[in-house]
Amino acid sequence: MTTLQDCHVLDKQDPLRELRYQFTLPEGVIYLDGNSLGALPNTAAARVAQAVTQEWGQGLIRSWNEAGWFDLPQRLGDKIAQLIGANPGEVVATDSTSINLYKVLNAALHIAAVDAPRRKVLVSERSNFPTDLYIAEGLCRERGMRLLLVEPEEIAAALTAEVAVLMLTHVNYRTGAMHDMQAVTRAAHAAGILTVWDLAHSAGAVPVDLNGAQADFSVGCGYKYLNGGPGAPAFVWVNPKHADRFWQPLSGWWGHAAPFEFTPDYRPAPGITRYLCGTQPILSLTALECGLDTVLAAQALGGMQALRRKSLALTDLFITLVEERCAGHGLGLATPREHAQRGSQVCLTKTEGAYAIVLALIARGVIGDFRAGDGDAGKHLDILRFGFTPLYIGFEDVWNAVEHLKQVLDSGEWQRPEFNQKNAVT
Amino acid sequence: MTTLQDCHVLDKQDPLRELRYQFTLPEGVIYLDGNSLGALPNTAAARVAQAVTQEWGQGLIRSWNEAGWFDLPQRLGDKIAQLIGANPGEVVATDSTSINLYKVLNAALHIAAVDAPRRKVLVSERSNFPTDLYIAEGLCRERGMRLLLVEPEEIAAALTAEVAVLMLTHVNYRTGAMHDMQAVTRAAHAAGILTVWDLAHSAGAVPVDLNGAQADFSVGCGYKYLNGGPGAPAFVWVNPKHADRFWQPLSGWWGHAAPFEFTPDYRPAPGITRYLCGTQPILSLTALECGLDTVLAAQALGGMQALRRKSLALTDLFITLVEERCAGHGLGLATPREHAQRGSQVCLTKTEGAYAIVLALIARGVIGDFRAGDGDAGKHLDILRFGFTPLYIGFEDVWNAVEHLKQVLDSGEWQRPEFNQKNAVT
Repeated sequence: MTTLQDCHVLDKQDPLRELRYQFTLPEGVIYLDGNSLGALPNTAAARVAQAVTQEWGQGLIRSWNEAGWFDLPQRLGDKIAQLIGANPGEVVATDSTSINLYKVLNAALHIAAVDAPRRKVLVSERSNFPTDLYIAEGLCRERGMRLLLVEPEEIAAALTAEVAVLMLTHVNYRTGAMHDMQAVTRAAHAAGILTVWDLAHSAGAVPVDLNGAQADFSVGCGYKYLNGGPGAPAFVWVNPKHADRFWQPLSGWWGHAAPFEFTPDYRPAPGITRYLCGTQPILSLTALECGLDTVLAAQALGGMQALRRKSLALTDLFITLVEERCAGHGLGLATPREHAQRGSQVCLTKTEGAYAIVLALIARGVIGDFRAGDGDAGKHLDILRFGFTPLYIGFEDVWNAVEHLKQVLDSGEWQRPEFNQKNAVT
Repeated sequence: MTTLQDCHVLDKQDPLRELRYQFTLPEGVIYLDGNSLGALPNTAAARVAQAVTQEWGQGLIRSWNEAGWFDLPQRLGDKIAQLIGANPGEVVATDSTSINLYKVLNAALHIAAVDAPRRKVLVSERSNFPTDLYIAEGLCRERGMRLLLVEPEEIAAALTAEVAVLMLTHVNYRTGAMHDMQAVTRAAHAAGILTVWDLAHSAGAVPVDLNGAQADFSVGCGYKYLNGGPGAPAFVWVNPKHADRFWQPLSGWWGHAAPFEFTPDYRPAPGITRYLCGTQPILSLTALECGLDTVLAAQALGGMQALRRKSLALTDLFITLVEERCAGHGLGLATPREHAQRGSQVCLTKTEGAYAIVLALIARGVIGDFRAGDGDAGKHLDILRFGFTPLYIGFEDVWNAVEHLKQVLDSGEWQRPEFNQKNAVT
């Protein structure tokens, strides 16, 4: 059996231990929800204050040039590129994940329509994050295409000669299951299908190699494992071989080849810059840079590979401790045990009381979250979701989280009336 | 002749005088560029710091509910509604102006296609802000429609039976000329044409009455006269009679009727909420609220009507002083003298040296900006642009700005080599 002392030793031996001191976390909280909103970097308060007081207040309009506001999407994009296997100049930080997905799905469908006009199906996963499906649904409806939603194990068989585009989220938000990006992309390409990857639960959490996988399009989120702050701008990457083939429909002036010529005709900038649209929220971009720097700080300590090793050790430990210490309470495991198929979160299933247990844990300072299943009708059970950000979560945190879970279950505390409500947040 | 003493008296008599103490402005600066980026409200630094340190840092994921992050687009929308003649629940603050324009232009073109399928032309103004034209150009290309660009005086004649939608910016960014929204909308409707109004240079600057004018769609900007900070989220209004007729294509989860049910099918929320898409940049929205409150603070002192009176007095004074004190230097007036046709800015023309003069003024602390003309080929001369935000600009400021302009012109200071460059910002 694993002991608290074992966890203590693991923390002492952790080569990434010092990285947690980059963050301000509330006293008495074990934060296992960095997959929903990353923690606050210590640098963010002063940096955002400087942007407000000096850059906005004193610099005013001059700061567009003097404080480098115009270049933020590209400058931050270059930082993100280092975390996802992209090259400098291939990524911009901008808009929201949903909006960026709209841009790249349009591009993918356009290119497919030119190169393979008879393909009329877009394939995705039924339990993909809903906003991805909503954007795809709208586009398919508009273009007379069919959106085919399948289970993960059905993807391979779904890659037929009718399919134009395969759109997947690399790590599933609900289960933490991770696709093999390289293998899936290769299979898709072998079938003549373009790939669109959503890295919302991957960027900053697991190694990603977009160029190595020869992926086609990708988007991702700034406020989860990248610690960019609430609603931080998202990012978009396009394989350079596709970037100049399409003029994406959100063709605003920030994507123009010469925005300050103020010409009435649109002329898209070369490369990824044409995936910009309107003026960006500078204060939120400023905070995002602080978040990116917390992840890049790991580079001197082994980078994403080292973060991945620790992430797997944390999630392995959590699974082991839950199974050793919380047996007999009807908990199941929704996340794959196989390392190659696991993101940086662990999802437990329970047929009854999952939401109340999450609330009881939150009341004790262990912050995870809840995702509803589809009830009696479906195959998905309610889920207790725990994200493990290796930058700021330690092995003793895992022990303590499981100890709280054990106490909540053993005592029946979760059955108290105050935890019997529905009010989930992402 | 008007004297400095006259201006001093005007300031003392100004019932809105106290409102300027809501802002932090740099020492020694006369800021005539609030039409590009509004000044910093005193409250913003502390409010944003609270959002960073408390809401994000301490509240973490809980702040989506506890700090009201989810409701910010609607809550701020209700504040903006008060400034543009809209009702509570009709406006959301979200995304960028360009993206919101894409949403409403799609809606307008969809509704026109249903109600009047033979109309295949979208009319706009040749000197509309370019991003509006770029978005319209892309949509027209995609839908096989024609984008017809005309001069302001040609609009009335262009409203033919071929036209589906008229898209105008209420106050022209380049000249400060203002359309009569009510009359133009009435003429468009009489010809069976829907109207889309961009309020980028109107909201917070001039009285707007969207419902009074029975306009159809509108968007606007948060970072100009609304003082919301660099790249602050924009806003969108849709006439309630149209709102539920169309499912706009940026159909992300924030526009879903029940986003936290995480259902795979999109079901648009009723009303303006379906014009939301993805997660919003909370820190930038937080700053925007501080800006909105500076404009709403005028309500106790007469509101937009009082701001308008002062704005016209300021721009009248500027025109008068330039004509009295800077004669003989070849300056022209691009902004209409007629009050009903003037926004809250004054644009001067010059055949030579306009950009150098703007730079020389900035070096003296008088911040306006420059917009290039279309050279020998065209009819538009280079423009020196001066915005007058009545919340924080006084009559003595106007005097001093003109005094600096006079000195720059009389001395030939603008011909110094350091002002001979091209590097304009919006």
